[in-house]
This record gives sequence, C-alpha cells and structure tokens, in this order.
Amino acid sequence: MSVNLFNAVEFSHLLLKKTLKPGDKALDATAGNGYDTKFLAELVGAEGKVFSFDIQKEAVNNTQKLLQTADLEKNVKIIKASHAELDSYLEDKINAAIFNLGYLPGGDKKIITRAKSTVKALKKTIKLIENDGIVVLVIYSGHPGGDDERDAVLKFVADLDYKKYNVLNYKFLNQPGPPPQVVAVKKRI
Amino acid sequence: MSVNLFNAVEFSHLLLKKTLKPGDKALDATAGNGYDTKFLAELVGAEGKVFSFDIQKEAVNNTQKLLQTADLEKNVKIIKASHAELDSYLEDKINAAIFNLGYLPGGDKKIITRAKSTVKALKKTIKLIENDGIVVLVIYSGHPGGDDERDAVLKFVADLDYKKYNVLNYKFLNQPGPPPQVVAVKKRI
Repeated sequence: MSVNLFNAVEFSHLLLKKTLKPGDKALDATAGNGYDTKFLAELVGAEGKVFSFDIQKEAVNNTQKLLQTADLEKNVKIIKASHAELDSYLEDKINAAIFNLGYLPGGDKKIITRAKSTVKALKKTIKLIENDGIVVLVIYSGHPGGDDERDAVLKFVADLDYKKYNVLNYKFLNQPGPPPQVVAVKKRI
Repeated sequence: MSVNLFNAVEFSHLLLKKTLKPGDKALDATAGNGYDTKFLAELVGAEGKVFSFDIQKEAVNNTQKLLQTADLEKNVKIIKASHAELDSYLEDKINAAIFNLGYLPGGDKKIITRAKSTVKALKKTIKLIENDGIVVLVIYSGHPGGDDERDAVLKFVADLDYKKYNVLNYKFLNQPGPPPQVVAVKKRI
C-alpha cells in the first residue's frame, strides 16, 4: 500500500465525483475537448443536466462528437458563448461547476481564458451554486497571460466570506514549470 | 451527498492512513499530547513500531498516559530529545512521519518548534524514508516565529528534486488568521 498523491486533474475529478449524484445539474465553464463535460454527464446521469460553454467552434464540435460517441448528448446543453455571459443562458441552480483555465489542448494557444472574463464568470457561477455545492478550478499558468489570470482568481477567492464558503488550494511545490493547481470553492450555507 | 473538504489535521491523517500498514515503522517528530503517536501506533499495530520525539517533559508524560490508556505503549518508543537529533536514536528506515509545527496545545506557548531545528529534523527524516513513504507536516503559523518557520519549510521542500519527491501543499485561502496548512513529501524512488 502506498499513498497516491492525486495530480491536479485527478483531484478535481475526485471533488466532482464526491459532490454530484444522479439527477443533479452541473456546469462545464470551459468545454475544451469535452472530457470534463462527458465526466459530468456520466455523474448526473439521464435524469441530470450539464451545461457546457465554449467560445471556440472547434471545442464545441469536439465536445459534441465525444458526447455522441458515448451516447450522452441528450442530457448536455452545449452553448457556444463566453462563460462570462452564462447567466444569459442558465437560470437553474447547479450542484457543481468546473473551470479549466488556459488554452484549448491541441488548439490555438493564442486563444486563452483571461483574468477579467474568468473572474466575471466565476462570480456568476458562485451565485448559481446550491448549498453544499462546489466550484472547482484547474488553473494552468505556464502560458503568457496565465500568471495574471491565476493571481486574479486567487485574489478573488481569498476574499470570499469564510462564513459562507470554504476555499481550498491544492498544488505541488517542486515541479519544473508552473504545474496546474486546483482551487475549490464549497458553498457552506 | 456532498463533498467533504477535509481540514488540515483530517487531511494529514488521511495521508498517513493511506500510507501505513500493519508492521510498518513510523515517526512522530512532535509528540505533543500524543494524539498522532496513538494514531500511528494503531495503524502499524503490534508488529509495527512508532518512534515519538518531544523535548518537553509534559508532552512525554501526556503521550505516555494516552498510550497506556489505549494499551498501545508496547510498540511505541518515546524519546525525550529534539527531533533535530533523531538520527542519534533512530537508524531504522521508516514508512511515514508526521510533524506538527507550533507549540504544545495547552502547554507553554513560548516553547515552539523553530525554523532551523525543524528543517534539520526534516532533512534527516527524508533520508530515513522508504520508497513510496511519506513525510507529512501540519504547519501552524499564527504565533510569533510561526511565519519564519513556515517560510523556511516551504523553501526547503520546494527545492527538493522533483524526480525523487512529490511535494504537495494543501491549504485554505479564505480563513481568518493563518489556518494550519499541510505539506506532504512523498518519496518516489
């Protein structure tokens, strides 16, 4: 037996898995190639609903294909729009949300999530979270602009009222380059 | 169902529990009132061994009493000495170690663990750790001197070779006062 120190993506999935149950509603704020959307759709099942946002046509297409292959497209609504405008499309309360900050893996590295719109989307997401719900962010910051976004997110979550939210930070300290880190905001009441 | 964000002490215990099995050897570098020593003794069982260090007589007495009450004193060696000298008492390789940095709860708050001796003890402990073994630190830093020690420990572990060790940091970002944080060093090879 030996302890497994989960990497950032594994730890983000563990938190989502522990939070979501069949019938729940979930948000993927950054659909990307669709892997998290698929993971959320499996967790909430046929009675649940996933809302998945991305501004890039390539990401929306890749996500659609992945869901079709897994026969999961029925309970997912893919929205080609910025997550900063998510309240225009989404009025439901949600039980969990995931953000992957950075660029589309395999896509155009110049198109990145950015500090201002990410914090705007995060604020709106936190308002939609049910009690005991969770917002999980996997923050990549090795690309130009990544440091600014990471710092803006860390500042925003550090200022959240501790009576209403627990804000956890999970990261590795001795990796080469800035490894991805996890921030999780749990709504307490 | 809702996700439980473990607090620092709970998370440290989770890591130890996932690492240690009956028959293993473990180190409590800061016996304190004995709670972690007892926890380790239960995990390694009658075939295992726990080495428990503290410089304060009160801590040694409290730890002894706790172990006697739980009928666990046989497989624990309590050593009244600084953990900075642990290699004078301990030649065995160990599978897991725990450090609680700060002062003795309920004791003299002027007697604290300090940056220099803590880093010295940590270096020696890392040398004794078996492959796949883990060193877990729960760092309290709200007291005078606590910041210096925390910063010295974080600097030391951030410089460990990533090919040999994974160094995880687990902390809450929005608590009043500096809440305890966890650092875990896992030996990879």
